[in-house]
Amino acid sequence: MRATILHSPGEIRVEEWADPAIERPTDAIVRVVAGCVCGSDLWPYRGANPVDEPRTMGHEAIGVVEAVGAGVERVREGDFVIVPFDHCCGRCVHCLAGQTQGCVELAMTASGQAERTRVTNADATCFVLDEAPAPERHAAVLALSDVLPTGYHAAVSAGVAPGSTAVVVGDGAVGLCGVLSAKRLGAGRIIALSRNPHRQRLATIFGATDLVAERGAEAVEAVRELTRGVGADAVLECVGTEQSMTTAFEVARPGATVGFVGVPHGSAIPWRTAFRNNIGLRGGMAPVVRYLPELVPAVLDGELDASAVFDLELPLADAAEAYRAMDERRAVKALLRP
Amino acid sequence: MRATILHSPGEIRVEEWADPAIERPTDAIVRVVAGCVCGSDLWPYRGANPVDEPRTMGHEAIGVVEAVGAGVERVREGDFVIVPFDHCCGRCVHCLAGQTQGCVELAMTASGQAERTRVTNADATCFVLDEAPAPERHAAVLALSDVLPTGYHAAVSAGVAPGSTAVVVGDGAVGLCGVLSAKRLGAGRIIALSRNPHRQRLATIFGATDLVAERGAEAVEAVRELTRGVGADAVLECVGTEQSMTTAFEVARPGATVGFVGVPHGSAIPWRTAFRNNIGLRGGMAPVVRYLPELVPAVLDGELDASAVFDLELPLADAAEAYRAMDERRAVKALLRP
Repeated sequence: MRATILHSPGEIRVEEWADPAIERPTDAIVRVVAGCVCGSDLWPYRGANPVDEPRTMGHEAIGVVEAVGAGVERVREGDFVIVPFDHCCGRCVHCLAGQTQGCVELAMTASGQAERTRVTNADATCFVLDEAPAPERHAAVLALSDVLPTGYHAAVSAGVAPGSTAVVVGDGAVGLCGVLSAKRLGAGRIIALSRNPHRQRLATIFGATDLVAERGAEAVEAVRELTRGVGADAVLECVGTEQSMTTAFEVARPGATVGFVGVPHGSAIPWRTAFRNNIGLRGGMAPVVRYLPELVPAVLDGELDASAVFDLELPLADAAEAYRAMDERRAVKALLRP
Repeated sequence: MRATILHSPGEIRVEEWADPAIERPTDAIVRVVAGCVCGSDLWPYRGANPVDEPRTMGHEAIGVVEAVGAGVERVREGDFVIVPFDHCCGRCVHCLAGQTQGCVELAMTASGQAERTRVTNADATCFVLDEAPAPERHAAVLALSDVLPTGYHAAVSAGVAPGSTAVVVGDGAVGLCGVLSAKRLGAGRIIALSRNPHRQRLATIFGATDLVAERGAEAVEAVRELTRGVGADAVLECVGTEQSMTTAFEVARPGATVGFVGVPHGSAIPWRTAFRNNIGLRGGMAPVVRYLPELVPAVLDGELDASAVFDLELPLADAAEAYRAMDERRAVKALLRP
């Protein structure tokens, strides 16, 4: 098959690669209809994570089931499915507690930016749609494989409640989905930290009521002013750097929670603030399978639509350009069609 | 007055010091009946925190009100009071939300190991008892000024629920009060990490159902075995070092919360574990004023008694020996009587 292969930092190409195969009876193979590039894909692309050998890329995908293992009962060939990036068994003690991201058989989609990808524990993992969505709805549905539930996880983890004031740190696709999710959870005020006019516009469309263009201590000061010195009831940390984590803690009011979903890269916690102000921290990898029964109907009904985060659509063959555009922040998120 | 003065790390003496005075009309001066040494007092004593100039010590105290400012209305001279270590105004937006430790006028007891101490915002801060407790109940009541509500805060922050499995990291006085608090909140199983026979005994008296003497990775393995590989529902982190924080995260089951109350000293978070397993972190400085209306009656009724953490009682004049005993772990917690 054709697949996006990262050879070393910055060196990414679409080339021939071995088709994924059924390895366990609970596997399924999905023909990818649409995949995309995640902000976390940029870490190895930029060399922030090591790249030891050539590897396939992409953990977000929707598509059609092409083959299933002998032990797969619910999912069938020809089904149109959403593939959550984090596969789970659905039966272990952690899955049954809703902690599907902590599944004892946790695995990840490994070739979402390719023609085919393997899904482990397909029955528990795949979300089967009654019918294939129209192509113009692919972006909205694709967002359900990771970026939208991840933004939602930030909002849920931060404890966004009706009428509350939420701050969203990060104006990437996840941060924007965090804005959309805070709105869905009823936040009365949503303060988005962004200095990029295009992303500011998207944040506003998604429900941001206030925009803060400052960074660091000045951003903290701006949020304090907007909240009359009180701070935010809930903070969504959607970046994962030390500066963003510090900002998140500093804008939180005493007793608030920072919901974090950015893969942490050397992020220390501002302990003094956390200690005195009792700022909680909660989040991490989103339990996508847990959220889909709630989010999919809302997306199919059109009441929840994150598709605007995809501001670049390219054929799979141009994956390298998709990475460049996101790396240079010319695009928020790139959709790839095999 | 006579007061415990820390001159430099290790150099601590009881000597003459200026009496505290009413500085604001909302202040009160309390004649200390009993004070004590906190684990956090050992940080500057050991040189882990800087000591720039001679300073009074001690933030835990019970005693009799000796003088009140013109603006104090509820508290009166002669009242027997518990002095929460964190003073608060009771009126600001944070106090009204129960976040008394985040009060805009937050102040701390500064001379609990002395003959007198000043209490700011006395009306909101002091808990007035109907009558002076008998001397043999002083230890149980003194525990309410910090150590017991702090252990309780760890348990509440960790989300200890009826029937749950709690792990307590730390066998100091706070950790032991954490055991007692987890029991009070209905934990079905309480696993205490301790290798010291005396502290193990106290933990068992306070409600620990299991003791783990191992440390680090071996302690994690032991807890995993005790919980059939699942991990703990709630973890109380009562130390504040990097090793203890790591252990706390590693023994938590996915979705659990680490309730932390140890003043953090260079504690990093094990991010990979926190991220994949969605381990939350919550806690910090205990809002003592918030907890006292619930805890004081239980202590006065005798149903909640942390007095066993005081295994050394000395006259104030021997404060230096109290510090030495705790530093050398010969004593869990030392009570001082002026």
